[in-house]
Amino acid sequence: MNKIEHIGIAVKNMQTANLVFEKILGVSPYKEESVPSEQVNTSFFKVGDNKVELLEATGPESAIAKFLAKKGEGIHHIAFDVEDIVAEMARLKKEGFVLLNEVPKSGADNKLVCFVHPRETNGVLIELCQQI
Amino acid sequence: MNKIEHIGIAVKNMQTANLVFEKILGVSPYKEESVPSEQVNTSFFKVGDNKVELLEATGPESAIAKFLAKKGEGIHHIAFDVEDIVAEMARLKKEGFVLLNEVPKSGADNKLVCFVHPRETNGVLIELCQQI
Repeated sequence: MNKIEHIGIAVKNMQTANLVFEKILGVSPYKEESVPSEQVNTSFFKVGDNKVELLEATGPESAIAKFLAKKGEGIHHIAFDVEDIVAEMARLKKEGFVLLNEVPKSGADNKLVCFVHPRETNGVLIELCQQI
Repeated sequence: MNKIEHIGIAVKNMQTANLVFEKILGVSPYKEESVPSEQVNTSFFKVGDNKVELLEATGPESAIAKFLAKKGEGIHHIAFDVEDIVAEMARLKKEGFVLLNEVPKSGADNKLVCFVHPRETNGVLIELCQQI
């Protein structure tokens, strides 16, 4: 794990949340991107070498819609930057962690990603991400 | 905001959670520290230039005990590193955010800290921290 790549925050409305985080972080989003396969819209803010990602659901089956219904707005996941996602996935699997996807998948912001089940990680949804 | 200083994770048992995060992050905690004024024990892991902080309650009045009772284990807060915490607190207050302490207080890991109420930040508990 090289660093915290980003923190993902589930929000009800991207446009109003963008205004809030612009005030907090003092910068505008450098990118907004839809990920139709995940039914989410995303926006990304730079904070030094790290990022904050806002996530808005675009359909009821989105993981973000389910998270909002269950827990309300707030921090959804933490993403760590890795050099070799396949190797890191194999290492964590061998350590007993449960991967939510068995092969890396395409995420927002030009990344290959894999999520780790929060049941084995003290309730923390962890994302591994490798720059493409 | 210079970078994500750390992510704070509320856990029920520090010793077992330390073993889990040692496996995930591939390193041992570089520090364990009690903060009696907050009724918490903490442990810190380095991840590149960022940190992961585990938080365990030591008393029923601890904010971590209340968080665990309400939401269970998981990500509790995100902390941003700032140069001048007093100036940053004044800036956020002027922007309409609510500070949970009106003057900086001593936090773990040699920091002056201030928390921002999550009501105005899309449910995200934000900590500002300045290295002492």
